[in-house]
Amino acid sequence: MTIDLEALYVDLHKHPELSFQETRTAGVIVRHLTELGLEVEEGVGRTGLVTSIVNGDGPVVWLRADMDGLPVQEQTGLDYASTAKGTDPAGLEVPVMHACGHDMHVSSLVGALERLVNTKSDWSGTVVAVFQPAEEYGAGSKAMIADGVLDRYPRPDIVLGQHVTPLPAGVIGVRPGTQMAASDGLTVVLHGRGGHGSRPHSTIDPVVMAAATVMRLQTIVSREIDPRDVAVVTVGSIHAGLKNNIIPAEAKLELSLRYPNDEARAKVLEKVERVIRAEAAASGAEQTPTITTDHTLPPTINDETATARLTGAFQRAFGDDSVVDPGMFTGSEDVSWFAREAGVPLVFWFWGGVDPKKFADAVAGGTLDRDVPTNHSPYFAPVLQPTLDRGVENLVVAAREFLA
Amino acid sequence: MTIDLEALYVDLHKHPELSFQETRTAGVIVRHLTELGLEVEEGVGRTGLVTSIVNGDGPVVWLRADMDGLPVQEQTGLDYASTAKGTDPAGLEVPVMHACGHDMHVSSLVGALERLVNTKSDWSGTVVAVFQPAEEYGAGSKAMIADGVLDRYPRPDIVLGQHVTPLPAGVIGVRPGTQMAASDGLTVVLHGRGGHGSRPHSTIDPVVMAAATVMRLQTIVSREIDPRDVAVVTVGSIHAGLKNNIIPAEAKLELSLRYPNDEARAKVLEKVERVIRAEAAASGAEQTPTITTDHTLPPTINDETATARLTGAFQRAFGDDSVVDPGMFTGSEDVSWFAREAGVPLVFWFWGGVDPKKFADAVAGGTLDRDVPTNHSPYFAPVLQPTLDRGVENLVVAAREFLA
Amino acid sequence: MTIDLEALYVDLHKHPELSFQETRTAGVIVRHLTELGLEVEEGVGRTGLVTSIVNGDGPVVWLRADMDGLPVQEQTGLDYASTAKGTDPAGLEVPVMHACGHDMHVSSLVGALERLVNTKSDWSGTVVAVFQPAEEYGAGSKAMIADGVLDRYPRPDIVLGQHVTPLPAGVIGVRPGTQMAASDGLTVVLHGRGGHGSRPHSTIDPVVMAAATVMRLQTIVSREIDPRDVAVVTVGSIHAGLKNNIIPAEAKLELSLRYPNDEARAKVLEKVERVIRAEAAASGAEQTPTITTDHTLPPTINDETATARLTGAFQRAFGDDSVVDPGMFTGSEDVSWFAREAGVPLVFWFWGGVDPKKFADAVAGGTLDRDVPTNHSPYFAPVLQPTLDRGVENLVVAAREFLA
Amino acid sequence: MTIDLEALYVDLHKHPELSFQETRTAGVIVRHLTELGLEVEEGVGRTGLVTSIVNGDGPVVWLRADMDGLPVQEQTGLDYASTAKGTDPAGLEVPVMHACGHDMHVSSLVGALERLVNTKSDWSGTVVAVFQPAEEYGAGSKAMIADGVLDRYPRPDIVLGQHVTPLPAGVIGVRPGTQMAASDGLTVVLHGRGGHGSRPHSTIDPVVMAAATVMRLQTIVSREIDPRDVAVVTVGSIHAGLKNNIIPAEAKLELSLRYPNDEARAKVLEKVERVIRAEAAASGAEQTPTITTDHTLPPTINDETATARLTGAFQRAFGDDSVVDPGMFTGSEDVSWFAREAGVPLVFWFWGGVDPKKFADAVAGGTLDRDVPTNHSPYFAPVLQPTLDRGVENLVVAAREFLA
Repeated sequence: MTIDLEALYVDLHKHPELSFQETRTAGVIVRHLTELGLEVEEGVGRTGLVTSIVNGDGPVVWLRADMDGLPVQEQTGLDYASTAKGTDPAGLEVPVMHACGHDMHVSSLVGALERLVNTKSDWSGTVVAVFQPAEEYGAGSKAMIADGVLDRYPRPDIVLGQHVTPLPAGVIGVRPGTQMAASDGLTVVLHGRGGHGSRPHSTIDPVVMAAATVMRLQTIVSREIDPRDVAVVTVGSIHAGLKNNIIPAEAKLELSLRYPNDEARAKVLEKVERVIRAEAAASGAEQTPTITTDHTLPPTINDETATARLTGAFQRAFGDDSVVDPGMFTGSEDVSWFAREAGVPLVFWFWGGVDPKKFADAVAGGTLDRDVPTNHSPYFAPVLQPTLDRGVENLVVAAREFLA
Repeated sequence: MTIDLEALYVDLHKHPELSFQETRTAGVIVRHLTELGLEVEEGVGRTGLVTSIVNGDGPVVWLRADMDGLPVQEQTGLDYASTAKGTDPAGLEVPVMHACGHDMHVSSLVGALERLVNTKSDWSGTVVAVFQPAEEYGAGSKAMIADGVLDRYPRPDIVLGQHVTPLPAGVIGVRPGTQMAASDGLTVVLHGRGGHGSRPHSTIDPVVMAAATVMRLQTIVSREIDPRDVAVVTVGSIHAGLKNNIIPAEAKLELSLRYPNDEARAKVLEKVERVIRAEAAASGAEQTPTITTDHTLPPTINDETATARLTGAFQRAFGDDSVVDPGMFTGSEDVSWFAREAGVPLVFWFWGGVDPKKFADAVAGGTLDRDVPTNHSPYFAPVLQPTLDRGVENLVVAAREFLA
Repeated sequence: MTIDLEALYVDLHKHPELSFQETRTAGVIVRHLTELGLEVEEGVGRTGLVTSIVNGDGPVVWLRADMDGLPVQEQTGLDYASTAKGTDPAGLEVPVMHACGHDMHVSSLVGALERLVNTKSDWSGTVVAVFQPAEEYGAGSKAMIADGVLDRYPRPDIVLGQHVTPLPAGVIGVRPGTQMAASDGLTVVLHGRGGHGSRPHSTIDPVVMAAATVMRLQTIVSREIDPRDVAVVTVGSIHAGLKNNIIPAEAKLELSLRYPNDEARAKVLEKVERVIRAEAAASGAEQTPTITTDHTLPPTINDETATARLTGAFQRAFGDDSVVDPGMFTGSEDVSWFAREAGVPLVFWFWGGVDPKKFADAVAGGTLDRDVPTNHSPYFAPVLQPTLDRGVENLVVAAREFLA
Repeated sequence: MTIDLEALYVDLHKHPELSFQETRTAGVIVRHLTELGLEVEEGVGRTGLVTSIVNGDGPVVWLRADMDGLPVQEQTGLDYASTAKGTDPAGLEVPVMHACGHDMHVSSLVGALERLVNTKSDWSGTVVAVFQPAEEYGAGSKAMIADGVLDRYPRPDIVLGQHVTPLPAGVIGVRPGTQMAASDGLTVVLHGRGGHGSRPHSTIDPVVMAAATVMRLQTIVSREIDPRDVAVVTVGSIHAGLKNNIIPAEAKLELSLRYPNDEARAKVLEKVERVIRAEAAASGAEQTPTITTDHTLPPTINDETATARLTGAFQRAFGDDSVVDPGMFTGSEDVSWFAREAGVPLVFWFWGGVDPKKFADAVAGGTLDRDVPTNHSPYFAPVLQPTLDRGVENLVVAAREFLA
């Protein structure tokens, strides 16, 4: 029996599901793993899955893949592009797309499990495979931990995970130390006073309040952060009003903040709150803004020793040029919680999904940002191969390095 | 038989319907008018109604009331407050409220028709009652005209209409000449480039583009319009993005513009477009913004002679102090189209719905804007009486003035 | 003896002087008035002049002209354009120009005095001529009053004054009631923290603070003032920093505010201060901004009765079409203080200085704002004639109307 | 004979001079160097000085110090604080301060020359000492090169220079590769249309245009630069207008831009120009902005081999802990031109001037940015000792390392 991984990937790509709604995805995974003879527990952390391969004495290696898609309207033009719809937490029907490549993560982990099952005589120890929901909410790993995943399965000696990214296919990016930024997601509600669109003076206009806030937030990164430090203040969504001739009563902003460590986090959060409150005051708001933290993600820090060991393994497997230091990424992950809670090392690496020639041309032309869509873009799509094969091999090489 | 108008008003208030969806409202009106022995045509201009009382020779007077509610979440705290929901043109479920008082307009016109039916011996001529849909979209009168209302009913010698407003109950506001502003509703789509919230440099951020546009639009009124002229540039809605960590590909703004005449209209529109295009250019947008005109409303101009005549009639009926010149309102109306198309005079007046003591206190305290909610506010609610009785009487007095 | 008024005007135009520095101007006036046999007191309110013609019994009429120029680099291209320099209060050398037409005011009043001296047999009463300094600082009339001008000269029964303006030559603009706006001039110092241009994070950047403040101040007029009311919030100067690579410690803004009355004044001032303080807070400023009121000008209110009487006199003298109601002007004047302090009526009118054909073409082309330079523009220049002759005649007609 | 270096430093600190006006400074230096028996050429590159010590065969080492002060009002409270005034290029009288520590650079180089003269028996080769003017304009080294300094003196085998900085006294900061950023200084003139402060609609307000431009420029760093890259867009000065009630015709901005290399330079410049032009378009400006490059500074790149060698020498002289890698600085220097033109290595290092305890407390309290004033701050002042002694020793150690 051999799983058709390409067909699996295409199927998942066509049927993305939003965070904590990955039920069809889970069903597909369960079907394949069951065919491999594995027992799968469903519903761990709401929609997560766990399976394990116990194969004699030896270290316990956790392999983690995330499963959720994003509310993005796919525009890749692929013949297997998603046309799926979903319902977001606000009850809104939205398009859904695997714009972050989690379908590639799932397919790779399924393929790696098949390989490990079929090569049991070559290794010993325990592999625990974690199919995590809701990474995009920064909530899935915590949900699985709250559901006891660390207690009900062999505790890890190491946690491993990977992410597909706009590097050239064939290249792995990994570095010791801080690999990904810490992050907070905030929701801000600005309270104005509604009224008729023709009578602004009888209102406190929350649209103007929101616009002024967005413009002023820009000055945090441009003026208040050491230019040599990394910080991102993104307003990812802004919503106010239903009609041109009604000035609404409030506006909602969703912010995504990024920083390399907790010290920077405290500083940036203080600045963001200062700006938001002052801009409400500038508008003469009668109520201070409501600021809610939706999630907090720690920095993703790769264990120095384990990363060095893994880098060596990758170089032996794929060649010396196959591993680069991609620098710290400003993206964030919740995979860390598994390792942090267990008190064990983590290595989280990136692998490339871009046609190498296209990548080289874009670098040469100075058009990388324009021509190579990044994760979360409606145009994001890894080339199917060799990305998928390498996703499988990466996991097998990595697991075998830390197994006996 | 006497219609319980207060019960009718409360019923309508509890069951507001969005523009072009006023089917329950229409049903209620038809039931009452039928009981009066009137024939009512339904579906004129999609959801509009027309009825007429032909009572011998004499002038043809059109009385017009609008019927639609607004996507506003009522916060009046009234025991008959609306909890209704509706589906807006974008398919979004929204709260609905009679935040502009059209329930009062409908109830008053039903009451006036009853009175006119019961006093036929006192007057002669023809009354045509028009229950218009979709005033809030600026589209209902045009829809009824396109549906032939001016051809299929006796053409008016005069068109009359009224609007409840935050004047003290008992007071009528009307002026010859420009009574309400001209207006355009625009939808603007700003095109950026989406991507991951942690990688702003790979995107063209439409949230920042939108915020900069909103701030820059403020300078049209503050710097480019003669301070003695009337102009309003309201951004009534702003929408972009679905999630804090995805930078969306575009942002949508809905604008409501107001001006006293067509000359000003041309100037303001040119300025608004100039700012929108330049701000997209400042963002390095690769596509110019898409600007769509949703509706265009002419100024509401009261006929000088007819207004003088009607003012006299109101003063005789309600006292010399009962009529004030409220100045030009920056709000807009589509009632004009009936008179413009027919080439006949229009008089459109306002009548007060605020408790006189509350109004006087607010004036004395300089807190009118804060304490007296305006139309379209979630707190807007006329006092039921004497507002309703006066709404009926206004129409009867006005109709009788122009009938034989 | 006949004064060559055109030569006087050209001489004054070539030699403008800043506020409270009008010494050469005063000397020229004194020379001419002395030749007329008048006694002139110099140094009234620092650089002001007063003379009087006592001619038997009758009313006391004050005629007032202001004398100062502005720190503007003349760009009219006239062969008598100013190339003068002056020293402003900050000690800075600046260009000076009669960009507000006070040279025309002075020349007209000198001409009117000559005419009144030469026609003494035709009238009786007293004429007091006030050549006021520092109108542009809003400080000259108060300085003259503080210097006792109302006590040392016959107290007026009426105060008259005039201003040249971009109306067609031959046209007078005057209205009863509020003719010009009230105004305040504010200086705002925003306190940041200076540092190296390459290290913004070690500073509190006052340039950004100032820019954000200017943008936010726009929202007062665009959103917080009834669109039907008049209000102006102008930032006329902004200054910060000496060098591109030093972030300065503070920024200075000079604001000019306009409103029709004291009630509006209080509201706008409160809003302006609110915005300034909040924007400093948004910057994390450690010191609140310093806000100083440089001058306060009352509204210029024309006495109803006297204005009606004067309008009749002008119409008799110049034709029925020669007087228009120009509406309220948003400019401001300190002439009111003389009448307010004396408790007597004021009439202050405008007269046109634009070639009528040029004016008509600009109106027809809708290019009035572009083609007809306004007061304070570097291109402002009345046509010499008939503006000057009419300036003289206006004053003579007006004075004679109120004299016996 | 021994020069009293502390007295020299205090004298220079009290008498700072602006760029290309360092004539008193030059006189003081000449007097001291002449006493050492050195011949000094004056007027090299307008106000620069050069001297040399030829001491047998061996390498040629150039030691460079810069001499100019800054237009900053000193607020250190030191008893030797500057109260000097100067005239800036615009003819404005401004306060002057050694806010960048060039007085310390000059004093250190004078002291080092005395030491080298007195220890000639210990070394052989040639030392060329360059006292450069106008570093703050980024113009002095080019002026000296244009004046033939590289042809008229022994060409260097290496160029050495140092800068005092907010590190703890006793600490040297130096790194191989890019040590300081590339930079451009731009002057931008925004063209509006002037007019009366009460009639904004007749103008194109350059103050609002400037404010909108400053706010929009913030979005380049906040949104368009990879958060991991270094870029600074500072508007160091903004000037428009002379009076609150005149809207001026134009506004002037001075920008300081920073980036690590020429590729980034091209990108940032393009973005800056795009924003400036678009904001003028948003204002409806009739003339595009005038953008002038005042100076262009290359990145300061330390030679890898020479830096390693010098680091070793410093560690031997001052202890292993005495040298740190301070990272790339976002400040810029024109010292590079000497080495670039000569095609030889450069090493440029920083040395600390802050009391170590104060520095440690600020680090511990997280208040470094607030409590330790940076170069160009009105509070910047190195502790006199041991800063001055170490400035001398650094140069002697460094020169000796590269001499025979």
